[in-house]
Amino acid sequence: MIISDRMYALGSARSVIRELFEYGNMRAAQVGRQNIYDYSLGNPAVPSPGSVNETIKDILDSQPSIAVHGYTSAQGDAGVRQAIADDLNKRFGTAFGRDDFYMTCGAAASLAICLGALVTPECDEVIAIAPFFPEYGVFAGNAGAKLVVVPADTTAFQIDFKALEAAIGPKTRAVIINSPNNPSGAVYSEETIMKLALLLARKSAETGHAIVLISDEPYREIVYDGLEVPFVTKYYKNTLVCYSYSKSISLPGERIGYVLVPQEVEDHDRVYAAVCGAGRSLGYVCAPSLMQKVVGRVTGQTSDIDEYRKNRDLLYGGLKEIGYECVKPQGAFYLFLKILGDDTEAFCERAKALDLLVVNGTGFGCPGYVRLAYCVDYDMIERSLPVFRKLYDSYK
Amino acid sequence: MIISDRMYALGSARSVIRELFEYGNMRAAQVGRQNIYDYSLGNPAVPSPGSVNETIKDILDSQPSIAVHGYTSAQGDAGVRQAIADDLNKRFGTAFGRDDFYMTCGAAASLAICLGALVTPECDEVIAIAPFFPEYGVFAGNAGAKLVVVPADTTAFQIDFKALEAAIGPKTRAVIINSPNNPSGAVYSEETIMKLALLLARKSAETGHAIVLISDEPYREIVYDGLEVPFVTKYYKNTLVCYSYSKSISLPGERIGYVLVPQEVEDHDRVYAAVCGAGRSLGYVCAPSLMQKVVGRVTGQTSDIDEYRKNRDLLYGGLKEIGYECVKPQGAFYLFLKILGDDTEAFCERAKALDLLVVNGTGFGCPGYVRLAYCVDYDMIERSLPVFRKLYDSYK
Repeated sequence: MIISDRMYALGSARSVIRELFEYGNMRAAQVGRQNIYDYSLGNPAVPSPGSVNETIKDILDSQPSIAVHGYTSAQGDAGVRQAIADDLNKRFGTAFGRDDFYMTCGAAASLAICLGALVTPECDEVIAIAPFFPEYGVFAGNAGAKLVVVPADTTAFQIDFKALEAAIGPKTRAVIINSPNNPSGAVYSEETIMKLALLLARKSAETGHAIVLISDEPYREIVYDGLEVPFVTKYYKNTLVCYSYSKSISLPGERIGYVLVPQEVEDHDRVYAAVCGAGRSLGYVCAPSLMQKVVGRVTGQTSDIDEYRKNRDLLYGGLKEIGYECVKPQGAFYLFLKILGDDTEAFCERAKALDLLVVNGTGFGCPGYVRLAYCVDYDMIERSLPVFRKLYDSYK
Repeated sequence: MIISDRMYALGSARSVIRELFEYGNMRAAQVGRQNIYDYSLGNPAVPSPGSVNETIKDILDSQPSIAVHGYTSAQGDAGVRQAIADDLNKRFGTAFGRDDFYMTCGAAASLAICLGALVTPECDEVIAIAPFFPEYGVFAGNAGAKLVVVPADTTAFQIDFKALEAAIGPKTRAVIINSPNNPSGAVYSEETIMKLALLLARKSAETGHAIVLISDEPYREIVYDGLEVPFVTKYYKNTLVCYSYSKSISLPGERIGYVLVPQEVEDHDRVYAAVCGAGRSLGYVCAPSLMQKVVGRVTGQTSDIDEYRKNRDLLYGGLKEIGYECVKPQGAFYLFLKILGDDTEAFCERAKALDLLVVNGTGFGCPGYVRLAYCVDYDMIERSLPVFRKLYDSYK
């Protein structure tokens, strides 16, 4: 049977993260769940706010089935888009309108759509800044783009601007950022965003075409210690925002999010049309209708972020006390741990032998580190700390 | 701003159908909804069975939020896939297993994924049989394929086998069929499916590679007069089924369906892996989780199909009595009317001047016909018949 080699490769290559997760389930069956310390999956552990299920029931009880489950317009229900605009405008002092939003089936769809809309054969390089979500490479590939990786600034997981500047060339179409960051937990400071905006404006002028900043921000609301996440569109006009409700209100399976094309974007209407066209081409058109209506009513709310904050404090404090090195996570629910020794794979394997499941940072473009997803039970973190100590001691 | 010309064209070209629909809304505001006869949109008018909303509430009340709204596996919840397999096996005497199914965000996603998995640069022709759903061309384009159109058999809207045979060449990768058919309402007979299977088997042998039959069947359960729709995988082994719950249980906005890769498909596991890879590449992975669980429990049920049957009888009987020509629809909720005169666009415009909104068949690959979507209120059909007579008389 003739099939696409690229699609076969994508479908048969087991995800390292998922493989670890399944290994964890197998081990749990062997030795008991309480003896497995699974930091592999970024699946929210804190339930959705109660308003989500209440809203679903209220919509089912108050609207006819045909209206609830029927097609919305291709770009999403107009009232829902207006509600999202209103919420952002209130929270961030922006002035978005409903016609700046295109509702999508989550962040993966948002990214695939933006890249589809922007990439051309002549201008086909997309920059990711390490550490980055590995699927960026897949979505870039689908759009016919080449992913150019800028090495990580491992001092604070902000941006190595010298390396970024060197990576930008005449074929650079877009730069993807992800703050709060998966996997580092870092949040780009306002200074970082301002420097980035200046650099992209200068490089846009030099290359003679606008370089687009794609802000992938499903973790926007998951930050700690009262930190404010700069709203990127206010700093750089050619910004497209890819948002998902997967993390902020714990709906990862529901596939609901949006692309935001602010009015300030050069040729706004043409870019928005291209976003609509890419959605159509990829088979998206009308994001899931009930969930559209739900997020229209709960947008801006969050799950109980303080649960993740407690987890962070326990895990970060415990690891530092043992002697590990890592940058304190300011957002998302990941901690990016510096390995011991100099072999990342060997470190992961030694951890795994202790039933401590951590993800190799190499896939995120950052060898020498491992990712710990701490969206888990607090108790598991407590139980895991002596095991982290054992691992540490084994390197002495 | 540099954007993809293809995506811009797709996003800015207004859909003829949607334009008509919006024109209808504008006219309704001017002259009253009761004076507009809008047959433009294929949006189910019969509500979902009550079990859909009951099941949603039951799932919300009986399962934790994290389980309801969390990620399922990439290919979909295993229990849901098993339930769908069991239902099909019971109804059609098949022997599918859960690992033959890949849950998707509806039929558009299913088609985009199948074409992505199958099409290669060397084998890049996909055949559609007129009349066909115009988005096939868009999805083929996304997969880098060329859509080859086989002219309609306008006597019964079965298949013109001579024309189909002539269209198959060494680069033919797949043939898409859609029965019950949008826009003709025809259902392929068992004889048609058997002849098709024979032809594809012979042509596969001749070209030296398996030609895949993609059966796009969201209308599978919407048939009248006790007609049985042949289950295509039983007739041709290299069949992929694209299904959606949009029409059968009136959930068009919820984007939920599946791709079925039967075990009989040559290199089943490789093809299934390529389907998974194409889903990943396009940004689909894990179809909407709550709706997965819902269809897992109501699969096989339908909305009240008899409502559509009543509409068909009234519309078909009324039009024939006036003197119009059309093949009696056996399924779906469309009637494909032969125009009067010889100018399809002029016919549509003359109808529109009477506030009778019908869709030009040219976009479906079949000029000389117009599509009437009769998933509307029975009363509207009654009110429209004198207007159809007026239109008829104007051609005398």
